[in-house]
Amino acid sequence: MADLRKLRTFGATENGVIRATLSPVDMASRQWLAERMRAAGLDATIDGVSNVLGRSPNDGPALLIGSHSDTQPRGGWLDGAMGVIYALEVARALSEDPATAHLAVDPVSLADEESTFLSCLGTQSLCDVLSEESVNSAQNADGVALTDALEMAGLAGRERLKLPPGRYRGYLEAHIEQGPHLEEKGHRIGVVTSIVGIHACKVKFFGEQNHAGTTPMHRRKDAGVAMFEFATRLRALFEKLAGDATVWTFGNATVFPGAQSIIPGFAELLIQFRDSNDERLNSMMHALEELAARMTAGGPVEVQVKAERDPIVATQMDETLQVHLAASAQKHAPDAWMHMPSAAGHDAMIFAHHLPSAMLFIPSIGGVSHDFAEDSKEEDIVLGCQVLADAAADILLSA
Amino acid sequence: MADLRKLRTFGATENGVIRATLSPVDMASRQWLAERMRAAGLDATIDGVSNVLGRSPNDGPALLIGSHSDTQPRGGWLDGAMGVIYALEVARALSEDPATAHLAVDPVSLADEESTFLSCLGTQSLCDVLSEESVNSAQNADGVALTDALEMAGLAGRERLKLPPGRYRGYLEAHIEQGPHLEEKGHRIGVVTSIVGIHACKVKFFGEQNHAGTTPMHRRKDAGVAMFEFATRLRALFEKLAGDATVWTFGNATVFPGAQSIIPGFAELLIQFRDSNDERLNSMMHALEELAARMTAGGPVEVQVKAERDPIVATQMDETLQVHLAASAQKHAPDAWMHMPSAAGHDAMIFAHHLPSAMLFIPSIGGVSHDFAEDSKEEDIVLGCQVLADAAADILLSA
Repeated sequence: MADLRKLRTFGATENGVIRATLSPVDMASRQWLAERMRAAGLDATIDGVSNVLGRSPNDGPALLIGSHSDTQPRGGWLDGAMGVIYALEVARALSEDPATAHLAVDPVSLADEESTFLSCLGTQSLCDVLSEESVNSAQNADGVALTDALEMAGLAGRERLKLPPGRYRGYLEAHIEQGPHLEEKGHRIGVVTSIVGIHACKVKFFGEQNHAGTTPMHRRKDAGVAMFEFATRLRALFEKLAGDATVWTFGNATVFPGAQSIIPGFAELLIQFRDSNDERLNSMMHALEELAARMTAGGPVEVQVKAERDPIVATQMDETLQVHLAASAQKHAPDAWMHMPSAAGHDAMIFAHHLPSAMLFIPSIGGVSHDFAEDSKEEDIVLGCQVLADAAADILLSA
Repeated sequence: MADLRKLRTFGATENGVIRATLSPVDMASRQWLAERMRAAGLDATIDGVSNVLGRSPNDGPALLIGSHSDTQPRGGWLDGAMGVIYALEVARALSEDPATAHLAVDPVSLADEESTFLSCLGTQSLCDVLSEESVNSAQNADGVALTDALEMAGLAGRERLKLPPGRYRGYLEAHIEQGPHLEEKGHRIGVVTSIVGIHACKVKFFGEQNHAGTTPMHRRKDAGVAMFEFATRLRALFEKLAGDATVWTFGNATVFPGAQSIIPGFAELLIQFRDSNDERLNSMMHALEELAARMTAGGPVEVQVKAERDPIVATQMDETLQVHLAASAQKHAPDAWMHMPSAAGHDAMIFAHHLPSAMLFIPSIGGVSHDFAEDSKEEDIVLGCQVLADAAADILLSA
């Protein structure tokens, strides 16, 4: 808890934290974290994309455990940070107990899970699936290039670490749930079964800019009105296609030029939807594209759909690792835990294609996250770490 | 036409003009205009709010003729500018004809009709209805205070001219129509009967910001979705209340924080509606407020309505001046002119409370305005000035 509170001080703002990837405060927190790893008897390296990787002096099979310590533009104090400090604490706890002191746990803090520059930059780099092209084209919301930010952070030219072949038995990540399910059910631990797939697209509306007073209603090609109608109709279509756990979000909506006396000539809507069933996601995208085509055909505004990125398919967590997490949860929180999908994306989503991977959740108060108000009960934070530590030991002892 | 083309060069951008109130290019154009007035034998003053007022050496009764020469952020070349150059040309033409050389025409270019800082700043100042409070609180979209902009333009402390008591028989303003009515009817001149009333308000939606993946649909308080629904439902209500010439516009729509993976916790919609019938406008505002109350009561998002400014009531143009404009239109464009309301606001809207006021329109190609593409046929521009000059002479000769 002391380390977790100390990490919070880097970028603390009101009840939340502002610690954007590669910002001075983010780099300072990584230096501190590397020192804490060294104090725990680990080797620690800050690599060329700002990943902080601790390495146990013990031989493998090892577990890679961690999460991210960057935050949303106005983030909560536990989102990512808690999983990083858990990893440090698990490495420390196992090394302090003679029964587990020979086990190898490598804690890691991964860079830019929150997409300040490039979603899961650190994990992509570590798993060697990061293209030079995406590094060179990435920039933050202020237009700062990732390459410039790396240089300003003193990381230009520094080696980017890769997963050492053969060392890891798997990857474990603990995280706050970021949703209300555990709290609603009165449970304290979630063992993650899968991470939902995500489709995202931008819908563009091409109308005609004109004077808001002198243009009769029947002659208008109002891009904003078309956007409102599209969103309202799509909502009805999605409600028919949705399963119990499907979610969809209009994260942003903009009209141009955005003045009181001007009919918007252009509008743009950002849409994202998530489900653990890829077929359902494809049906939703199909419905969205059909609606755009129907509205374009009907006029007067042209509606274009542009995928924001390749769809993220649903990712299954490793069954064996889940069994160990579940056993540890049952030991420390008897009948107060559940299996559940993760509705948020995580670094584990990428690791799962390279290592057996699994995740553990603790409850978020009120289900709130990505907001200064995000918080969890201290007793749940402590419990989660105990569950993770015992599971890690069991996994390595049975490896 | 030469003067009109010269004025266009101040801020010319593509086919349009960017000449924001009190910008260096706006001030340069006003210096040039004052020189052109002096070359025409008029006294010319740039006053403390940047109004350029020419004064004929002849005694009254005089006519004040003009419009504004500031533009929208990305405006057309004729909007306002044409009426200013007409005024200069009418003063010049009447002074060159022995039959009218004794008549007094004072041309004026009014400051900030387009609301860069404060809507109709120049006309409000000239009519002595400008409060110090509104001057002190006004700022542009970049947050520059009007008082600072006046100082940077070298106008701090300079006298603000008022309408000289008793001098004016009335105010005349020529303008492009900014709508498609004249073109659709094949007419070349519009004699304005009234200027529509305008209601404007901001509707605010207070929801709850949360994670777009982990928050189940039934627990969301999505401010953006509430805004889309409000806009769609209001549109249906307005369609029932509208008359043939009623218009309404959602000029801007914003959601916060506007990120792909965050449910918007706040949204804001800018709404404006216009009609020449004040009772209808009041009914529309009532329907809007009722819808907001119904949606707030139904939840989960609170909807608040905030008037953007006091409603502008519909303004009638002076009957006698209309008769003179109509007679001149019939002389120069037999049966190719019409009476019509103005769906846009103009400086004449304020002058009408202080002087008999009237307006003349010429056609806008395609009805386009407030856009670089705005344009009118040269033959219509020339015709409009002839109609205005003859009407002005007739008004003063019969005064």
